[in-house]
Order: sequence, then structure tokens, then C-alpha cells
Amino acid sequence: MSNLLLKNVILDKSSTNILVRNGVFESLSAADSAKADSVLDCTNLAVLPAFYNAHTHSPMTLLRGYADDRELFDWLQNYIWPMEAKFNLEDIIAGTRLACLEMIKTGTVFAADMYWHFPEVARTITEMGLRCCAGPIFLDAFDDSLTDPQFEEAEKFYDSLSGFSDLLIPAIMPHSVYGAKESTLRKVSEMAERLQYPIQIHVAETEKEVKDCLAQTGLTPFQYLDSLGLLTEKTVTVHSVHMTEDDAELVKKRGAKIAHVPVSNMKLSSGAFRAGLFTDYLDSICLGTDGCSSNNNLSMIEEMKFASLLAKHSFECTQIFSSEVVFNFATINGASAYGFNGGKIEKGRPADCILVDTKSPFMTPGYDIVSDVVYSCDSSCIDTVICNGNILMQGGIIPGEAEIIKKANKSARRITEM
Amino acid sequence: MSNLLLKNVILDKSSTNILVRNGVFESLSAADSAKADSVLDCTNLAVLPAFYNAHTHSPMTLLRGYADDRELFDWLQNYIWPMEAKFNLEDIIAGTRLACLEMIKTGTVFAADMYWHFPEVARTITEMGLRCCAGPIFLDAFDDSLTDPQFEEAEKFYDSLSGFSDLLIPAIMPHSVYGAKESTLRKVSEMAERLQYPIQIHVAETEKEVKDCLAQTGLTPFQYLDSLGLLTEKTVTVHSVHMTEDDAELVKKRGAKIAHVPVSNMKLSSGAFRAGLFTDYLDSICLGTDGCSSNNNLSMIEEMKFASLLAKHSFECTQIFSSEVVFNFATINGASAYGFNGGKIEKGRPADCILVDTKSPFMTPGYDIVSDVVYSCDSSCIDTVICNGNILMQGGIIPGEAEIIKKANKSARRITEM
Repeated sequence: MSNLLLKNVILDKSSTNILVRNGVFESLSAADSAKADSVLDCTNLAVLPAFYNAHTHSPMTLLRGYADDRELFDWLQNYIWPMEAKFNLEDIIAGTRLACLEMIKTGTVFAADMYWHFPEVARTITEMGLRCCAGPIFLDAFDDSLTDPQFEEAEKFYDSLSGFSDLLIPAIMPHSVYGAKESTLRKVSEMAERLQYPIQIHVAETEKEVKDCLAQTGLTPFQYLDSLGLLTEKTVTVHSVHMTEDDAELVKKRGAKIAHVPVSNMKLSSGAFRAGLFTDYLDSICLGTDGCSSNNNLSMIEEMKFASLLAKHSFECTQIFSSEVVFNFATINGASAYGFNGGKIEKGRPADCILVDTKSPFMTPGYDIVSDVVYSCDSSCIDTVICNGNILMQGGIIPGEAEIIKKANKSARRITEM
Repeated sequence: MSNLLLKNVILDKSSTNILVRNGVFESLSAADSAKADSVLDCTNLAVLPAFYNAHTHSPMTLLRGYADDRELFDWLQNYIWPMEAKFNLEDIIAGTRLACLEMIKTGTVFAADMYWHFPEVARTITEMGLRCCAGPIFLDAFDDSLTDPQFEEAEKFYDSLSGFSDLLIPAIMPHSVYGAKESTLRKVSEMAERLQYPIQIHVAETEKEVKDCLAQTGLTPFQYLDSLGLLTEKTVTVHSVHMTEDDAELVKKRGAKIAHVPVSNMKLSSGAFRAGLFTDYLDSICLGTDGCSSNNNLSMIEEMKFASLLAKHSFECTQIFSSEVVFNFATINGASAYGFNGGKIEKGRPADCILVDTKSPFMTPGYDIVSDVVYSCDSSCIDTVICNGNILMQGGIIPGEAEIIKKANKSARRITEM
């Protein structure tokens, strides 16, 4: 792997030179004379950590803008599921590549992705140069005939990991407490104990889920998950809107992480994450966009603003979830939730960063760059995106963009017309 | 005024040629051979109405990102007001020009602006080629010595209107029911009756305002406003978060318009607009960004998404405030609230429009262009902005951008250092 010099880059309001070697920040104050295989002139560009998307379903980007503003069940049953049933492998790859394009444009270099065809999704995302956390989904919907094949597919994936890029973090992804039988979830729990990979699971997304779980098990979804051994330090619970104070204490006691997805929760009227219960647990909250059917984009910039403003609104407190706090959700917390040490511009950390244009109107006058990124800017402010020391976008240009868009359009036409 | 041909532009999913003459859409299906002084090749660009910002304080763009996430009174008293007190005329113009830059970038061609130095703000906005509604503020804070000078300044402004651009809509802007004495508001009401200009006023922004008004007058802010003759078809009430069902009926009976500002309401924890009371009155709701201290940008694209999602969240209904509804808030409703007939791509309407890049990843696959603009896109999707038939931005480029940013930075340095 080659090395890279970011010359005259703004770091914490001062201009410096940053040397990247082997995918890691080697020096944050390299000499002007430092030599590197590639040199990037970063005049007027400020360096910040890139974003880590803690929960998405990349291939669903193919369904962006299809059938919005409908009642939840009507929407899922009559629009989303029938369309998803038409996805073939080519569509999955086309949708994932479109998602990657959008993620790079908005400064994101990591996606924790939960979807069918996860080996292909993982391969596509990492081939596009982003980090990815992916792994088998367990969603048998209480249909016994699906259970064994899902475990077989899982073992096959784990056996093939040496064939994947280092940018992949393998994971275990039981869909939800309502999406699989107790015996399945117990088997997943044993697998998780054995493999020690991150676990990602939707928990307490809707009131209905909580009611049904209480009726069936006598436990809240968090308590039920815990009873199965699936609420651990390795667990990232997604949505997690409807929780009691006891649930919150349980999450903290187990050291579990929470992927907050405010835009999706708002669009689907799921409710507001109880931010007020977690002001002493901020380091364990990360941020995700969800898929493009319930968002409809993958912008972590937008997600940060929604996270902050929804908390301020819901808890009638202007101070909660400050720009700095939600910026951490989107960067260092996302990395640590999935077990890697990215998310800060620090010597020795993975060289994942964005270069933002300090001369953008959205970044002017520039009293506080984190506030500007969280509350004001959009993708137009992002000039360059670097992941693992590799440049994914420079001057707003991503190689192969037109071809990716063409293929996504082709897949969308096929799905809607067949 | 010259004429302009938008060649091969996408209108309602088909390619056509649009001819603009004297600031008006003259033909939406001009012949390929149509001649014009200027021709714009619009291949892959779709035309949509431009946005009308129904409430802002443009010069405050100079305070973007200064002192966020603070308790309301601490924030206003110790941060915002002391900084505003330092604004000189040069700063007002620099901040307004920065605001215009940002508005154009995000597809906005009209601002209803409420701020001190309104003649200079009006002149600056219209000189930048945007439409503007501006006029005297009445905010005497119960200090008698301020009242007469404010009326004198108002009359002087109204007398000088022939010296202003046709893009200016003069208005009357009493700040709020708590910001001026009853006698002042009565005099404003007489002025409004005589002049028949639009009225813009903050109403029912906070719970405190409602409580204080009830204690002092026995009436809610809406009832009090009505008792003064200031709740009319010409009135645009801003924020309007805390209203009773009776207030909502009164607003409808009087035919008043509402400028909804969801981002500001959320950031300042003011509460949620009671969208559910107005599902039979959607044509009278428009959308504003508020100033950059409480937003922190002027993007109507972002504001539309917040408006829709906040309503869905607050009223636990996924169908309310659909993309189409909030798109109307941001376009045709803003125009009609301020008494002009822009906001639609229709023959005979003012030629205010944006050209969006259908090849942007955010607009792909493109099932529904309005959904994509409301829920997915950002300023990077906007290629061209046209107001009154004049091109304000083309290919993302606005003439003089660097100089405007330089002057805004200079003003910001002066304010923060003196």
C-alpha cells in the first residue's frame, strides 16, 4: 500500500501536512519536505473524520422514492415487499453500488449493512473501497423450512472470509425478536458466543413489537433478548425507540450499543428515541440512516441534524445532543460499536477522513466547523473522501459514477415493468 | 428584458422546450426552431418551481454556528443580542449577500425577510436578483421613545418604493404581540388597512408567549391579534406552534396564512406545529427557514423534509404532509401568501424555476421527482436557478461568490474581535 501526503490541510483551525502510510495516519504534522507517492494540495480544505453508517440496507437504494407517505402495513405489504421479491443478484449489486456512490458523496466510508445476499453486498461495498460490516440475516418468520438453510448459508459465509477484503467486518444479524423463533435465536446466541463477531438486531422499533413480545414472553424485547444471551457488548440494537427505564438500565449494564436512526423513525411514525435516558451513556450511541425506503437517502450529515433536533424537540431541551455529541455518534462511536478504532484524526488511527471546503457558503463564516457540518452543510461541502488511506472521491468526482447510475436505472426499469 | 429558451428540458417526465419572455413562461412547448436571445441546453435537467422562503432574517447568516445548543434565554441574552448589537450597515449587507448566495445554491428565489435596516436588506436581496418581501419592523419593546421613530422610518420607506426594484414586495412587520404596545399594534393595524400590504408577525412561538398574553389580555395571541384587526387574509403568522382548536378555526375564518418553520421550532425546543388541525387548510401553509442562528442554514430542501417528518412524528401518521403537500408549502403557497402568482411551471406565471440534475445519485432511480427533491436531494442536485426569467446560477456557479464569502468573513472577524 502506498503513502499519501495531505499538504496544507486545515486541522483544528491550523494548516499542517498529514502523512498517511499503510492506511493509517502516520504523522499529523509532517514536514513540508516530506515525500510521498501521492501529494494532495488541500489549501482551504479542512480534514475531519469520515462518517460511519451504523445501520442501513444498501440494495434498497433501488427503491428510493417508490411509494412514500403510506400507512405502514399497506406500504410494506403492497409496495415494498412485492418489489423486493423481484430483486435478482444483478439488481442487488446495482442498488448497492448506487448506495456506495451516495455514501461517498456524503462523506461516509463504512456501512453496517443488513440485507439478503450479504456476501455479494459485502463484496460490492468493499470493492467500492468502503468498509463494511455484513453477515447472515436470521429471519425465518417462524417458517421451519427456512431455518436450517439460513444457518448453512451463515457457516458457508464465515468459512469463506479469507476470500474477502480486509475492509469487511463479519457480523451476525438476527433480524428482530419477532422475526425468528426462540430456538433460532438461541442457536444464533451460541454462534455469537463462539464467533465473537458484532451482532446487529432491530429492537423495540414499534409499540406493536413491544406489546406482542410482552404478550408472548412476559418480557420486553430488551429483556427477551437478554434472556437469550443476545444483549452483550457486541450487540448493536437498532431503532430502540420504545424502551422502559428498566430497559435502558439493562442496555447500559450489558454494555450494548444503540444504532439510532431518527429519520426513519420519524418518517414511519415509529416514535422518538428516549435520548433523555442516555445522557450518561453517549459513547455507546451510534447513528444510521436505515434503508432508502424509509429515509430516502444515506446522508449521515442530514441524519446528525435530525438526531440533534429530534432530541431537542422531544425532550424540550435545547442543550441535549449538541453538534459535538451527534458528530461523535456519526464517527468514533460507529467505529467502536463495530469493533474498530476509526473515527478520529489521530496518529495511529485508520486514515478514514473527509476534506471539507471551508470556502463553501454553508461553512461561512466558520466559527465552529463541527456545528457547520452538523447543522448547516450538505454534500456540496465535501471535496474529498478517503478510506483506509485510499482516495474514493477527489474534487467531488468518483470514478465510474455515470456507469453506476446507468445500471441502477436499468435495474429499476426492470423491477417496475416486469 | 430579453428572452430565454430552455432547450430539451424535462417537464413532467417529457423533454420539451420552454420559452421565457419578459420574466414570464410564454410557452411550455416551444418549437425546436424557436429563436431566443439566450438558449440553455437543459439535457438531463428537469425543471421545477423555485422555492419561496416565507420567513427568514437574512443578515443573521453572519452568526451561523455561533453559540449553538444553549438554553434559550442564555443564548439570546448572552450571545445573540450582544453580537447583533455590533452589526453595522456593512455587516448587514455582507450577511444578506451571504444569505442570498446560500438561497440561490439551494434553489430559493424569494425571501420574506424580517430585520432591522430593511431598506438595505431589500435593496441587497433584489440587487442579487431574488424577489424579496420586506418592510418596517415594529418592535418597541414597550419603550415609548422607539415608537414614533419606527413609524417615521416606515413612512419614509413606503414613500421611497418607486426607487426599488420590481422584485420587492413591501410589507408591514410587527414583530410579535409581546414586542409592542397595544397602541402601537392598533396604529400598525390602521396602517395595514390603509396600505393593503402583506403583514408578517411571529405568533404563538412559545408557551410563555401564550401564558403571558392570556394573563395580560385574557386572550390567546391569535385572539388578541384578531381583536386588533391584524388577523386578516393579508397576514402571515410565523411559527404558530402553540394554538388551540379555536385559534385554528379563527385563523381559517380570517383566511390568514401560516409560515411554518419546523427546523427552528425543533432546534429551540419550541414545540410542534399542530399539523393535524390544518389538513383542510393546506393551501394557506407556507414554509420558512427562520434565520441562521436557529437553523443554521437557509435550505428549503431540508426544511421540506423536516416539515413532513416532524408532522408524521408528532401526529403518528405516515400519510400526513406528503412530499407533494410540503413541496407546495415551499413553492406556490409561499408565493400566494405574499400576494404574487409564482410557484408553478405554467404558461403566464412568473419564470421562477430550478433545473435539477436527473443524473445525480440522489435523484436515481427517479420514480417520483417531487419525492426525490423533498426526501433525498440536497443543493448538489441543483444545476441552475432562474428568477423572473434571469439566470442567477448556472452549472452551480454564481458570479461573485468568492468576493461575497470574503466580505462575510471580514464582517464576522470584526464582530467577534471588537
